[in-house]
Amino acid sequence: MPYADNKGVKVYYETWGSGGVPIVFLHPWSTNGYIWYFQTFSFARTNQCVVIDERGHGRSDKPQQGYAMKEMAADVVSVLDELKINKTVLVGNSIGGMIVMQFNLDAPDRVAGNVIVSSGTNLGAGMPPEAMAAFQKDLGGAFGGLIEGAVSARTKRERPEIVELMKAQFLVEENFPRHVFFAAAADPSGVFNWNITNRLKEIRKPTLVLAGEEDQATPVAANKLLADNIPGAQLRVVKDVGHFYQLEQPAGFNRELQQFIHQVAA
Amino acid sequence: MPYADNKGVKVYYETWGSGGVPIVFLHPWSTNGYIWYFQTFSFARTNQCVVIDERGHGRSDKPQQGYAMKEMAADVVSVLDELKINKTVLVGNSIGGMIVMQFNLDAPDRVAGNVIVSSGTNLGAGMPPEAMAAFQKDLGGAFGGLIEGAVSARTKRERPEIVELMKAQFLVEENFPRHVFFAAAADPSGVFNWNITNRLKEIRKPTLVLAGEEDQATPVAANKLLADNIPGAQLRVVKDVGHFYQLEQPAGFNRELQQFIHQVAA
Repeated sequence: MPYADNKGVKVYYETWGSGGVPIVFLHPWSTNGYIWYFQTFSFARTNQCVVIDERGHGRSDKPQQGYAMKEMAADVVSVLDELKINKTVLVGNSIGGMIVMQFNLDAPDRVAGNVIVSSGTNLGAGMPPEAMAAFQKDLGGAFGGLIEGAVSARTKRERPEIVELMKAQFLVEENFPRHVFFAAAADPSGVFNWNITNRLKEIRKPTLVLAGEEDQATPVAANKLLADNIPGAQLRVVKDVGHFYQLEQPAGFNRELQQFIHQVAA
Repeated sequence: MPYADNKGVKVYYETWGSGGVPIVFLHPWSTNGYIWYFQTFSFARTNQCVVIDERGHGRSDKPQQGYAMKEMAADVVSVLDELKINKTVLVGNSIGGMIVMQFNLDAPDRVAGNVIVSSGTNLGAGMPPEAMAAFQKDLGGAFGGLIEGAVSARTKRERPEIVELMKAQFLVEENFPRHVFFAAAADPSGVFNWNITNRLKEIRKPTLVLAGEEDQATPVAANKLLADNIPGAQLRVVKDVGHFYQLEQPAGFNRELQQFIHQVAA
């Protein structure tokens, strides 16, 4: 399977299907492109679907440094260039949503629309100083606590495999090595420190923000801030869902994404 | 990501984790390695997990001909050789289970144990002659009917995305082209015509057969025949499950697989 190259960093992607407006899927931190399993093949019946493993994750390169959001958005540009895709719908969850927003600032002409799933900006500001110390001390344990709060009560009851999967992906070194966690956390423009609050108004493409009502990782307020500041953006708060709508309630998610694609393509 | 080579056919595989007895996962017809998403990373915490896209599927080569079960088992040998894996637990669902059985006949010394999930042998014998005519006439429609019968009532109610996903994987040409269906169906040693009923007794490694109580694709009787004829094999009939236990009830499946791995490693 193919890789795109961004200044020497190899970015893994898959492409399935053809026709329609292309859809690019961007996963949350510490996971990989697999998380879109229930979307990739369903949407590939009608649209080209591009699934990316972000740098530091899964099957992509995992450099020691270089986890600024701008660099991660440039990785997506490299994939689109490689595939000769001009314009696309971007679907991003969590850090994937941040990449979507940064992409809109850096390459707005290549955006047909945005679906931002449980994301935010300036997330580190809300993090207590003890949090980073806890990660230093017991990375797996501290992250496990985050995951417990990131999944809805109904998901825990009916789909207990999701909590286990999220913890496992974080802990499997080949998927998400420890150095990626600490390099990204420390990066002044990385996942925690990235702050585009004052630039959200520059995002001008149709945008749907989907927030899980029970998400404690990027709570509704963090998502509302995005929708309030991106001109014309819609916010949908989803019941019984946490941080991973596409995996917690795939059928509902797919209906909403389908509807959005129709609107954008119309 | 890497490929193994079997006489010019490139077989895609992924490997995650290290240590423990290696586990090789083999997917059902018309799907791909993604189907083990809820196993791959969970088991990679303790074991090397190898996920293969079988020839004709997903990211592997899709030759015009050459879909004998023996060839598909040789593909797995090529992957193990490439990874320098001597002995492994094989986990196969449906045609994946057939590959597991053929592998046991051809390379028994490399097997530590087998988990056969909803599979069988001589499956074409039970197929009415009209079935193939229906496939010729309307491949997607006929396969859609099969899928409806292959998933349990509870799965349909609680995880409707699975039926949609299975239909989609079948219909996305890049994943499973039409020529693969017809070449494999017509192959005298392929998925429908392969019959090792009289050789099941030669399988001598610890074997667990998991049958979904509501599976109409490879019904309980087809799985019982395997367990009755493989010396020492255990049969477990699973309630509320159809043809895809690992995806319909991942947490339950993982508990049983974990237990089997412990037994085999003990």
